[in-house]
Amino acid sequence: MADTLICARWLITPTQAGASPAVLTLPDAAVVVDRQGTITAVGPEAELAARANIGTRIRLDEHILAPGLVNAHTHGAMTLLRGAADDLPLARWLHERVWPIEGALLDEHFVSVGTQLAALEMLLGGTTTCADMYFYSAAAAQAYLSAGLRAVLALPVIDFPTRYAADVEGYLSLGLGVRDRFRDESLLSFCLAPHAPYTVSDDAFARIQAYADELGLGIHTHLHETAQEITDSERRYQERPSVRLARLGALGPGFFAAHCVHFDDVDLALFARYGCGVVHCPSSNLKLASGVAPVSRMLAAGLDVGLGTDGAASNNRLDLFEEMRLAALLAKVAENDATAIDAAQAFTMATLGGARVIGLGAHIGSIEVGKRADLIAVSLASPGMTPLFDPVSHFVYAASRADVSDVWVDGARRVQGGQLHTAAGLSTAEAMAQWAPSIASLAEQIAAFRTESRR
Amino acid sequence: MADTLICARWLITPTQAGASPAVLTLPDAAVVVDRQGTITAVGPEAELAARANIGTRIRLDEHILAPGLVNAHTHGAMTLLRGAADDLPLARWLHERVWPIEGALLDEHFVSVGTQLAALEMLLGGTTTCADMYFYSAAAAQAYLSAGLRAVLALPVIDFPTRYAADVEGYLSLGLGVRDRFRDESLLSFCLAPHAPYTVSDDAFARIQAYADELGLGIHTHLHETAQEITDSERRYQERPSVRLARLGALGPGFFAAHCVHFDDVDLALFARYGCGVVHCPSSNLKLASGVAPVSRMLAAGLDVGLGTDGAASNNRLDLFEEMRLAALLAKVAENDATAIDAAQAFTMATLGGARVIGLGAHIGSIEVGKRADLIAVSLASPGMTPLFDPVSHFVYAASRADVSDVWVDGARRVQGGQLHTAAGLSTAEAMAQWAPSIASLAEQIAAFRTESRR
Repeated sequence: MADTLICARWLITPTQAGASPAVLTLPDAAVVVDRQGTITAVGPEAELAARANIGTRIRLDEHILAPGLVNAHTHGAMTLLRGAADDLPLARWLHERVWPIEGALLDEHFVSVGTQLAALEMLLGGTTTCADMYFYSAAAAQAYLSAGLRAVLALPVIDFPTRYAADVEGYLSLGLGVRDRFRDESLLSFCLAPHAPYTVSDDAFARIQAYADELGLGIHTHLHETAQEITDSERRYQERPSVRLARLGALGPGFFAAHCVHFDDVDLALFARYGCGVVHCPSSNLKLASGVAPVSRMLAAGLDVGLGTDGAASNNRLDLFEEMRLAALLAKVAENDATAIDAAQAFTMATLGGARVIGLGAHIGSIEVGKRADLIAVSLASPGMTPLFDPVSHFVYAASRADVSDVWVDGARRVQGGQLHTAAGLSTAEAMAQWAPSIASLAEQIAAFRTESRR
Repeated sequence: MADTLICARWLITPTQAGASPAVLTLPDAAVVVDRQGTITAVGPEAELAARANIGTRIRLDEHILAPGLVNAHTHGAMTLLRGAADDLPLARWLHERVWPIEGALLDEHFVSVGTQLAALEMLLGGTTTCADMYFYSAAAAQAYLSAGLRAVLALPVIDFPTRYAADVEGYLSLGLGVRDRFRDESLLSFCLAPHAPYTVSDDAFARIQAYADELGLGIHTHLHETAQEITDSERRYQERPSVRLARLGALGPGFFAAHCVHFDDVDLALFARYGCGVVHCPSSNLKLASGVAPVSRMLAAGLDVGLGTDGAASNNRLDLFEEMRLAALLAKVAENDATAIDAAQAFTMATLGGARVIGLGAHIGSIEVGKRADLIAVSLASPGMTPLFDPVSHFVYAASRADVSDVWVDGARRVQGGQLHTAAGLSTAEAMAQWAPSIASLAEQIAAFRTESRR
């Protein structure tokens, strides 16, 4: 049972998350991965190359080796709605485009096709783990397994009927069935997903919480995405959504929320007290004009913060490089401080921070002995990566997902030389060609809902 | 003398710039380019394919064909400082990093190497024209000519001595000499560049203006980048920089200014009255925490607005796709309106808007009969470009520079299949290898100035 030795010009990894992250930068470094996909050594190549038991040796002489990126909030199958609803305010985006399309077309097939497309886009772009929240979770689970992407599937609950389920009990029963079916898959884990405080009643929250406690499951939800959400809650419940969730007993170390754009000191204190995590989604929050989450204050309050793309209907990319760069740039103007969210902090949010938020901090998010080998290599060959003074700076500010040359998930190579690497030997183009007829057919049906011409 | 026919799955082009741009979207389209590099026909492939006199036929069946992008404000040679000064406030960025490095290292060789790197990065990323402002303009001119990139070279004037020139007369004399030497090059044009109101005296502005009037040259400057610049001017001159420039007679149709972040109604009215142009540089304005320019109000006031990357020391990419997407996303939150700067507006700023700003609106910036053939093709093959409902949306929100497959400047093919296409047959890697020793040597000297470790 020989190990694999991966040598790289640079290795970068966070070793500690938070407001003052620690990032290790090693030149001429190596990682040893055993046959089970566990990292067994990290250090200078000169020390590790002479180890016994090395089978495969991989050289990445013009590359940065880093932990795989963690997309801590997405709706994978919504890749099928990429570009179907641009430049619209949230209400029109939802009521005129997203909900009508989902109401008419959503089924296992839609989710299967859309999630496979999402998995392929993410893998090729250096994302090795995602926290996916959508419907038809079995189809999504199967898609991520086929692609070899690590996923935390959020089993959805929403307090109105959809094509997926009729009522709260129906959602929970379907979701827990999916969890039972796939619970032995090492790439998959599960949490419960009350959609949002404004779509889930107190009663439903209580039942979700009972299951979460009993089964030891985390909670993934949307929270404080818009100012309107807070105003509405104060009118209806006489309290902010965060305060209501605390009253309902939903907050705790397994709880994480996407967006948190409108977050005041009360919200920060609650999340800090209960150990909740935040997923910052800068592109989506800009595109829907929701606002800018106060990320530096969250980190300063001790919260775990990860990054998410949200769905492709509001982004329109599942591209963690874009979110990482934007998180760093945006914070500087939002806080009027050019030192806010530096490259090390942005890199850490995209890796270890996100891993901690979604409950996998002990297993992934950094290149450390004992962790799973979720690794990516970024090529330094392009003119835009030249010259190099600091690999962490280039990873955040200069690199694109197209610079990702190699990807391993759980020790298995999934991308090689920028091309999909599958057991079946399919190239990226061949994989895309397999799905093209299904995608085209669904896209044609979706296009019918885009009745308005853009201009 | 046969023509070239380029056929594409989609053709997109602005036909009118401004707040309500007109964008033409043609499926299965074709462009005819004559041997002089002039566009002689644009229309459905079915109509144009049967034309007589077609020599070369190029098929781009899975591509969007668009005008080449215009980088309306950059400092090309500063690619050598990429990542050398991150996460610093403007004052420390300038005083501790940029100026000491430039003061010690700037010469013809530095500018030659840095500009060649910039030209290569821009060409491969779909930028066919740039407005470059830096020192040693002859070296920059030669670098752009070698690469085959169209450039508007800003001949610099700054009211203190540098390694390049000793005084205002020296800067002007050097600059006008460069113009004389290269004035017959069709890819190059020239304007005068008083660096900024805070580094150029009234007297110097008057002399620059006299030359500009006499020679019919435009003016390219930095303006209202930070709030501090305005406060300082009010203290020193008892007026805002924009008002001072108007008083000095500098404003006019050939005048364009980068940044314009802090722009009130007085500034808008002045720019509208004098027909001045603005270059919006969103990444750089975020990275240095300068602020967000009020782009929608500029367009509504009738100003021409283009996009710029600024230099790689404050970005760290010369990537118009990034600026285009960011311009659209950022405006939505800055204006609290998800409809602000839609895809068509962002696309138009990156092409025709920028061309008009830098004085080339009659020649480039759109795919129209009689214009120069500055064209780029964006591949739709990657998962992140699937499905497609609107090619303009994908061009702005989903595409990356890595999706650029083919580039023509002035009718000459410069990139083919994502690889550099040169007369000498050099691949991108071979071109990079030529410059690698020079880049490495300069980078080593620059690194010595990064005495502080990042953390």
